[in-house]
Amino acid sequence: MKIAIDAMGGDNAPKEIVLGVMEAAKQFKDVEFILFGKEEAILEHLTDKTRVTIVHTDEKIESDDEPVRAVKRKKNASMVLAATAVKDGEADACISAGNTGALMSTGLFVIGRIKGIERPALAPTLPTISGKGFVMLDLGANSDAKAEHLLQFGLMGSIYAEKVRKIDRPRIGLLNIGTEETKGNELTKKAFELMKEQTAYHFVGNIESRDLLMDVADVVVTDGFTGNMVLKSLEGTGAAFFSMLKMSLMNSFKNKLAAGVLKKDLLALRAKMDYSEYGGACLFGVQAPVIKAHGSSNAHGIFTTIRQARDMIQKQMVETIKSEIDQGKLGGETI
Amino acid sequence: MKIAIDAMGGDNAPKEIVLGVMEAAKQFKDVEFILFGKEEAILEHLTDKTRVTIVHTDEKIESDDEPVRAVKRKKNASMVLAATAVKDGEADACISAGNTGALMSTGLFVIGRIKGIERPALAPTLPTISGKGFVMLDLGANSDAKAEHLLQFGLMGSIYAEKVRKIDRPRIGLLNIGTEETKGNELTKKAFELMKEQTAYHFVGNIESRDLLMDVADVVVTDGFTGNMVLKSLEGTGAAFFSMLKMSLMNSFKNKLAAGVLKKDLLALRAKMDYSEYGGACLFGVQAPVIKAHGSSNAHGIFTTIRQARDMIQKQMVETIKSEIDQGKLGGETI
Repeated sequence: MKIAIDAMGGDNAPKEIVLGVMEAAKQFKDVEFILFGKEEAILEHLTDKTRVTIVHTDEKIESDDEPVRAVKRKKNASMVLAATAVKDGEADACISAGNTGALMSTGLFVIGRIKGIERPALAPTLPTISGKGFVMLDLGANSDAKAEHLLQFGLMGSIYAEKVRKIDRPRIGLLNIGTEETKGNELTKKAFELMKEQTAYHFVGNIESRDLLMDVADVVVTDGFTGNMVLKSLEGTGAAFFSMLKMSLMNSFKNKLAAGVLKKDLLALRAKMDYSEYGGACLFGVQAPVIKAHGSSNAHGIFTTIRQARDMIQKQMVETIKSEIDQGKLGGETI
Repeated sequence: MKIAIDAMGGDNAPKEIVLGVMEAAKQFKDVEFILFGKEEAILEHLTDKTRVTIVHTDEKIESDDEPVRAVKRKKNASMVLAATAVKDGEADACISAGNTGALMSTGLFVIGRIKGIERPALAPTLPTISGKGFVMLDLGANSDAKAEHLLQFGLMGSIYAEKVRKIDRPRIGLLNIGTEETKGNELTKKAFELMKEQTAYHFVGNIESRDLLMDVADVVVTDGFTGNMVLKSLEGTGAAFFSMLKMSLMNSFKNKLAAGVLKKDLLALRAKMDYSEYGGACLFGVQAPVIKAHGSSNAHGIFTTIRQARDMIQKQMVETIKSEIDQGKLGGETI
């Protein structure tokens, strides 16, 4: 299999991207890599050219570029060329640590949607207290969603959780303001009805945002606006908590001593909540695996994301989505 | 002034409710109290009858009653009678620690909306790292909101922050998925336009949920669905962190010793994030102050909520909202 990689995306490009590819090339002998970006800069970090091709380009999408416009104008940007390689059948998946919005646009406009999936969804895996984690989608690909979209998000999340995360009969929950069936806004009430009726996945009903870290579901479905809000709330509260904890630990000599004793465990606690450990965010619903690695990814983060893409290709994630839709398991209206 | 109090609402009723009234009666000589509930049970805890009237009723709304139905059927419930006293001009404000949904329904159906405010909003004050806190609305009174509602929420929050929280020129922010003006879903994009145009309050633009605890605004406006989601995310993450921290602190003998040293500071940290310290949640947009005290309120929590109601009456919160609307400061369409 071949994986196309935007070597210029993210805070640590191209160095950490290339080092991540080197790590993956060593471990996965069945993968070939195509790197898109400045050849000279890439070569600086490339220690082994086995199964690695470089496609040179000077253009790149910046992190503050307006996504849709950037994708349309910068036709030779490393990210766009990586996606084009997938579209042209030269690669099976593509990865970038660059501008998230631009990668979503590239996935949608260059690679294109799966027939029957009306909207792609961005799906990271988020941490839980137990360390098991859960897949959440959509985290911002669409700000205004319809109930049918949420129904389809459930299917894609379920297939991913089962095939790639190896969870048997994954539990799919609908994020809502109460657990009762009658709770919610127009969108979630309608989505609940559709999700209850389908036969493609194991729907476990509404779940509340306060329980997200408690392993109440393996996949959590929501619209992109709410998902983005909730994700940033989790991140913000986590950051605030650690910042306050640090102030407490430093506010007296005896506290500093105690903090010294606890340091290792507190760092472990922090690492547990760092969801970059769970890999990149997948853009589900396009014709091939497209994965957004964290902007601050180091080599190991890129390696993890490559492994994720490899799993998605091997387990035929896209083909399975197509087949489930063709079998009409989402219910009458959506076929 | 007179404050009507549902003596039967909440986990610790009537004992803590009555004790809270006793604390307030001692401190606020300008307030008369009307307590609604089982007379015998109330009298058990009433140590001083000065400026306290009891209106006996056997009926009460349970915490798991379906709100709208309960309010319609239980016409003699302590909560409904308290609201009726306000409607009839026998009291100036009402307080309950009972069923939140039922209190919102009671406020809306019994006391009624302010003319020009299309939807009431539930507004608690939430903690920030600095201890200053911020008012957030709507937290669940309406699951489906229109941009005009958010515009009006901003006005009510601003008046409250200024009059009751004594913040000079409060900063009103719109909760959104990005800080840029063009970000958001249909609702927030439209609300942004309306809020930018009005002259009734100091709109500071979009704010992100990850910054909520960082004092970026004094009032944060959102729809009830999103508000509820975000609030529960904050609560859930906070609880998860303390639970994980506790596990870390207890996982070895040396950690336990260190935890002993830190105990006081960690409890203080936890208290800082406990927003019951900031008083109850106000139902803005009805014809008189209606406040929901926390279900688990102790006497001091009830006292705090009474002080809050007293402030709202003294500062003429409702009259100010009416006057600002009458002056057309929210812009043409909303008058």
